[in-house]
Parts: sequence; C-alpha cells; structure tokens
Amino acid sequence: MVEDSLFTPRSVAIVGATSNPQKRGNSTIRFLERGAFRGAIYPVNPKYQEVLGYKCYPTLKEIPGPVDHVVCCLPAHSVPALAKECVEKGVKLLHVYTAGFSETGIPERIELEQQVIGISRQGKLRILGPNCMGVYRPSVGLAFNIHSPKETGSVSVISQSGGNASDLGRMASARGLRFNKVISYGNAADINETELLDFLGRDSGTKVVGAFIEGVRDMPGFLKTLSVVSRSKPVVIVKGGTTEAGARAAAAHTGAVASRESWDAVWKETEAVSVSNMEELIDVLLVFQSLRAPAGRNVGVIGIGGGDAIQAADDLEVAGLSVPGLKQETQAAMREFTPLPGTSVNNPLDLNVMRQGPELQRILELTAGEDAIHALIVVLRVDQTLGNPKGEKTFAEMMDTVEQFHATSPKPMIIVSRALGSLEAFAAGLKLQEKFDRIGVPVYPSITRAAHALGKFVRFVASSQM
Amino acid sequence: MVEDSLFTPRSVAIVGATSNPQKRGNSTIRFLERGAFRGAIYPVNPKYQEVLGYKCYPTLKEIPGPVDHVVCCLPAHSVPALAKECVEKGVKLLHVYTAGFSETGIPERIELEQQVIGISRQGKLRILGPNCMGVYRPSVGLAFNIHSPKETGSVSVISQSGGNASDLGRMASARGLRFNKVISYGNAADINETELLDFLGRDSGTKVVGAFIEGVRDMPGFLKTLSVVSRSKPVVIVKGGTTEAGARAAAAHTGAVASRESWDAVWKETEAVSVSNMEELIDVLLVFQSLRAPAGRNVGVIGIGGGDAIQAADDLEVAGLSVPGLKQETQAAMREFTPLPGTSVNNPLDLNVMRQGPELQRILELTAGEDAIHALIVVLRVDQTLGNPKGEKTFAEMMDTVEQFHATSPKPMIIVSRALGSLEAFAAGLKLQEKFDRIGVPVYPSITRAAHALGKFVRFVASSQM
Repeated sequence: MVEDSLFTPRSVAIVGATSNPQKRGNSTIRFLERGAFRGAIYPVNPKYQEVLGYKCYPTLKEIPGPVDHVVCCLPAHSVPALAKECVEKGVKLLHVYTAGFSETGIPERIELEQQVIGISRQGKLRILGPNCMGVYRPSVGLAFNIHSPKETGSVSVISQSGGNASDLGRMASARGLRFNKVISYGNAADINETELLDFLGRDSGTKVVGAFIEGVRDMPGFLKTLSVVSRSKPVVIVKGGTTEAGARAAAAHTGAVASRESWDAVWKETEAVSVSNMEELIDVLLVFQSLRAPAGRNVGVIGIGGGDAIQAADDLEVAGLSVPGLKQETQAAMREFTPLPGTSVNNPLDLNVMRQGPELQRILELTAGEDAIHALIVVLRVDQTLGNPKGEKTFAEMMDTVEQFHATSPKPMIIVSRALGSLEAFAAGLKLQEKFDRIGVPVYPSITRAAHALGKFVRFVASSQM
Repeated sequence: MVEDSLFTPRSVAIVGATSNPQKRGNSTIRFLERGAFRGAIYPVNPKYQEVLGYKCYPTLKEIPGPVDHVVCCLPAHSVPALAKECVEKGVKLLHVYTAGFSETGIPERIELEQQVIGISRQGKLRILGPNCMGVYRPSVGLAFNIHSPKETGSVSVISQSGGNASDLGRMASARGLRFNKVISYGNAADINETELLDFLGRDSGTKVVGAFIEGVRDMPGFLKTLSVVSRSKPVVIVKGGTTEAGARAAAAHTGAVASRESWDAVWKETEAVSVSNMEELIDVLLVFQSLRAPAGRNVGVIGIGGGDAIQAADDLEVAGLSVPGLKQETQAAMREFTPLPGTSVNNPLDLNVMRQGPELQRILELTAGEDAIHALIVVLRVDQTLGNPKGEKTFAEMMDTVEQFHATSPKPMIIVSRALGSLEAFAAGLKLQEKFDRIGVPVYPSITRAAHALGKFVRFVASSQM
C-alpha cells in the first residue's frame, strides 16, 4: 500500500544529503529530528561520511536495511537514475522535491518527468511530485518546515502548491488549526488529487479535508471520488487558477491544465465546500475542526459597541444565518444590571464596554438560555480593553468568565478577537488564542470572517442532514 | 461658522470634569494634553477646585473668557440645563458625549433629545451627537482616545458609531492611514451626515472621505450633496444596517432609520465607493491616500511561490484588473540570472524564494519597465523569510532593495506583507509597515485584500476620467 510508505515509513533516505544548512538535503533531516521521527534516517551522498551525526551512505544500495520512503534533493537531470536505483532497492515511495520538470513547459523537461514515471512503473515504486514539499504528519514526525505545530489534529489537507502547504502549517499555529496529514503533491505526475482524496476519505484520523487544487487530469474520476468523500466528511476546496491569468500561472507552477468550466460540476454535483483563498480555507477548516454543530441557524451576538453589533447582524444575515431578537423578559433581566446609556440588550447585544465577572456570565447565560438561539458569537476587543486603565486585569477576567461559561453551556460558541492594533495587543491576542484552543473554541480576527465561516458550516450541516 | 467651533476651537470646556481616570470627564482632558491642544482647557464641576492641574469652574458662566466648544459628560437628564447654560454663555458647539437619548427607543428619552435641540435653537448653539465620541483632529490636538496617531494626514472620516470611529484611529496606526479629521456624530440630532459631508467636500485639508453611516434622515438632500462631493474627491462609504437584523441594531444604536431600498440610488447616482465593513474601509482609504493613480488596469505581480502567484492572478482579475504576460525578451533577461526550477519569470512572477539585492532590483526594473504594466504588487513573505537561516539580514536587504527601486520608479507599487504567523513576524511586519509608510507605499496583509482595494481605486480613477 502506498499509504504506508507515504504516511508511516519505517525508514527515510535523504538523497542529496548535505552539511549545508541552507539546502533541502540538510533541512529535511532537521525536520525529521524536530518531529522526533522514530524510524531510521539515512543520508545519502558519496561526498560525505556523515551528515548531522548520521552515517551517510554513498548510494541507496549501500543502505543495509529496507528503505520505505526516499526524499530526492538532487538536480532534475539526476532523478531518472535515482528512480532506477529506487526500483532496484525495492523502495516504495520516491518524493521528488526537485523542480524543473513538466511545469517549465520545456519539451525536454516534460520528457524527463515522463521518463521518471516510466522507470517507476517498472517496479512497485510510486512517485510523489515532482516539484513538491512532500508529507507533514506530526504524529510520526514527518514535516516540511520548522514552523508547523508538533501536535496532531483531525484536519488533513492536500495542496498542489508547496508554498501554500507550508504556509498552512505556519499560519495554522497561530489560529488553532491542528493537522493529521498535509500532502504537498506538486505536478501530480503519479500520485494525484483523486488518489489522495480517496485515501483521506477512508482515513479514520481525518475528520475534515482541505484542498488547494490547480488542475485535475481525470475530472470524471475526481468527481466520482469527491462525491463519495464529501458525503462522509467535509471537503473544503480552493480551486486555484479560476481566471485566465490564474490558469496561466497554474500551468507555469505545476503544469496544471486548469479548465474552469469543468469545475461547475464539482460545486453542483458534490457536497464539497468552495472557498476562494488560503485565508478562507483556514477560516472554514477551523470551524469544521472545532465547533459542535449548531441545531439551527440562529446566532446570538455579544458585541462591544453599536458599530460591531450592526456589522455582526449584517454579516450573519448575508452569510445565510439569522440574528433573532430576544424575548422581552430576557431583555428585562439584562436591563436590571446593564446601564441604559450606550447599550442594547436585544440581539445583537451591544455591551458598550467590555464587561467581565458575574455580569458577563449572566449576559452569556441569558442569551444562550433562549431556545431560539443556536450558537453564540462573542466579540472580545483586545485592542480596546488593553488601552484602558486596569486593562490587563479586565482582559484576564473577561477570558476566564467566557471560559467558565463555555464549560457548562451546550451552545456552540465562536470568539472574535480584535487584536491587530499594536504589538502588545497582538501578543495578548495570541495568549487568548492559546487559551481558547485548549477548550476547543475557534477564534476569528473579524466578525465578517467568523460569520462567513459559520455560514458555510451551518449550510453544510443542514444539507448533510437532508 | 460651526466648522470653526467644531474643528478649530480656541477653548474647550469639559462639563462633568473629574479626577476619576476611569471617566470620560477625565480622559477627555488627557486626550487634549496628549494632542498638545493649544487653546484654553476649562474643566467644569462644582465639586472640584482643580482637575489634572487645571483650575476647575463650578459652572460654565464662571469661565472668564469665551468658550467655543463644550464637551458634555453629564448624565442625560442634566443635558437640557447645560444646553441652556451654553446658550446663555454664547457657546457655539456642544458635543454631547452622553448616551441614553432617542436611541433607547423610550418615549421620554426621545422627548429629552428634542428638548435639547429645541433649547439650542433658541441661541446659535449647534449640537454634535448625542451619543458620540466627538472630533479627532491631530493638527489641533483634538482626540477621543489615546491610540490615535498624532500625525496629521489627508483622510477624513465621519462615523455614526463611536466605537468604529475609535477603532479606526487605533487600527489606522498599524496600517499607515493618517487622518485630517474624524467625526463621530452619533444620533445626528442636529449636525448630521449631509452637513459634515458638505464641509469635508469643501475642506482643502481633506483629500479622501470615508463614512460609516447607519441611517440618513433627509435622503434627497444627502444624495444631492454626495453627488457633488463624490465628483470632486473619493467618498468611500460603509452602510451599516443593510439587513433586517442590522437595521434593528442600527435603530438601537443611534435611533437610525435604515431604509435599505433608498440606498440603491446612492450607489447608482453618485460616484461614492461602497465597501462592506470597517476593515475594507481602511483598505480602500489606504489605497486612495497613498497610491499614485495607475495609467491603466494592468498589474505586474512579484510573488514568492506558485500558490501566491495564482492567487494574485485570480484575485486581480476578479477585482476587474488584468495580469498581462511579459514580453519574451523580458522573460529571457530574467532567466539569465533566475534558476529554472521552481520559478516563473512570466507575470504573475514566482520567485520561489525571497530574493534581494541586484537580482530583485533587476526583476523589479524589468517588470516595471514594460509599458503594458501600470502598477506593481510585490509580495514580501515576512513569515517565511524570518524562518530561514540569515532571515533577518535577508529581510532587511529585501526591504532596502524595494525601497531603492521605488525611489526611481514612476509606476505605483503596493506591498503585500504576510506576517501574522508569530509574534516575531508581526513585529517585523510592523517595522516593514513603518518603513513603507515613510515612502508612501501602501501595505496589505493579503493579496486578496490588496487586489480588492486596487480594483476599487482603478475603477474610480477610470470613471472620474470619463
């Protein structure tokens, strides 16, 4: 099974290993170490006796034991010979990090790629790439950069772009997204989106699937697989290259033939969720990862300031959600301790200034206590709170109150944290993020983005219950 | 003229002045001090002899000199009496910070607001608010929070929401936006959006106008004024309360009657630019503030990574812009020093890794050197660069190269800075922001947002040249 050598290799050989820390043949080994990879690590390069403390082999053949997974950091013209060696050694998976193949559009380079694939088919060798970052799977220690979280999660992503795959790991750390597997698959000369998607559909570790796809070679096959997978778990897709210039860029990037028309069927005939960029992909994966499914589309908003409250209401309705008014008795109960000037105790609530302690606790309880409210969005204005006297104390108490409330509330909750105004606020925002990560509450940087992600989630839940 | 007392008061009295730093009657005085307000500052409160080192007067009447501008921090029920005192003292402008008037929907409170307006009309007193933050004008030292930049600029904004007005100052600091005047006008019981817009249209210090409007009382008058102003300078508007729930929130916030239908005429019959939230307002104001008008809609993109390049191309085309291919000879000239693997030297460019020094300089020159390219978007991946060995040095050189190129290039340029992955990257991003602020290059946190703002700018420029 290609899955085993891709995701659970017992040994990894790095061909083109080097002592130069600027090169991939060095960083790949460091990533494995950082990830505490428990299998064997074999640097391969005739120029070295040792790399980073590991015995370095002149060729693959010389490695004493079996090799499941080879990472190729050689120049493109050396790859066919390496593929041949892999076949002879009985390697299962060759990840070709190297670029400079069909994506260049140069006939000899296209030919070179075909040659590698031809050789692989003479054995049982499978190729990932060329022109890709490979596999990030924190639970076994596979990684392709030093920023990706070490913790494992339930989200898996396939990405034709290595930069996007890499970014995802980096950005995810700061957003509370945790991955099971991320696969950067580049030119998809052998292992492609359909095979990977099929695997993730069957993978018990994967609860949510994300994808950045530039082009699909076999659209009928892809559609068939996607239809099945997207009925069993959410599949969120960025289609890159939807415009003429975008398609040209995709062709230059991975040789992808990005046919726009054929994607209409994807959105019509499957349950896949369409998003338009990586930022939105993260937003939507996050809500699928972290939020319990709300029982309906009615949202209670706890805002600070009328502008925020209005924005929340507009954004939620535009996203297909609803912001119902609260019962008169609920409003009256809040009014008992909420000053009249500058506040609104109807949904969307405007608390005017950040409250904490028993008052905030009671407002959360009263709002969530209405049967008609299915989910909560709570806006925490980090920027503003820190600017006030006693800001830090207020901020800490406010987070504690929300956390305590969440522990006993059955209603799903999203936090909007506004913390981009200063370095101090950004740092406080990261702390807030960590705190809410731990209790599984997703955090968004704006009301608009929270509303948008929640809308996609609620629509998916509704359609999968039909 | 109400303008003088609003924007250039010779003296400001703070009624309800107090030693309690948590109260508006204290912070208002501190904001004036921080802003180095050069007029007279008169605290008024019979309970104090002195507040923050200023002599405190028991009543307005006791103040020896004339008073142009009064800030009211008293409870709502005391405001009619204060308005009467203002009329007697010959005050020109009463800013009613106090909330708890018509926005509550309570008949006696609506009546209270009308009473204040009635009294003001017995003299030449004008009312700003009630339920608002007042005026921020850095050049004279008027401010409503401690975060707003002290530097003056060319953008003026009117906002019915005090929270949004306040946020704008806070967020703007970190985005390079600089204001001439920001007016939070709340319930608009007297001075309203139309009068303020008319003034900003005639104001030579204001080059660009932004607005957050919840409701307009006199739509024909507003339309007439907006038609005139939006032909002479860009007017960018967030209409809050465009949905049913949003309109309910707007009514609770400032008593605004937000009729959705009537706004269709605003977008059809005037040159006003519509944006859907405060984040987008900042993005669009920034491009109008900082960018020279491009000669056309063709954009050259310098990206790092194929995923970025594709995203840029898609986003720009969706925004109504174009990403034309480069000439064969331009591509050949770049290829001389750009390695083949992992890069694309056609527009949108994919440099694979961040480059700096002469190579980046030459790439910028060659791209901008094509007549068909009217503007540049340069993506600087702060997150990724800092993660590399020698990251800080590379990052500094890269910024220098772009700055040097910009100094001699006639083509407008936008920077996309991706720096949200860690505290270190955010800090570096703020430095980058400051550097490019100084040379008037707008910086965006994502390609999508840069493309969107540039699209609105180019469309406005094209339509105003027709």
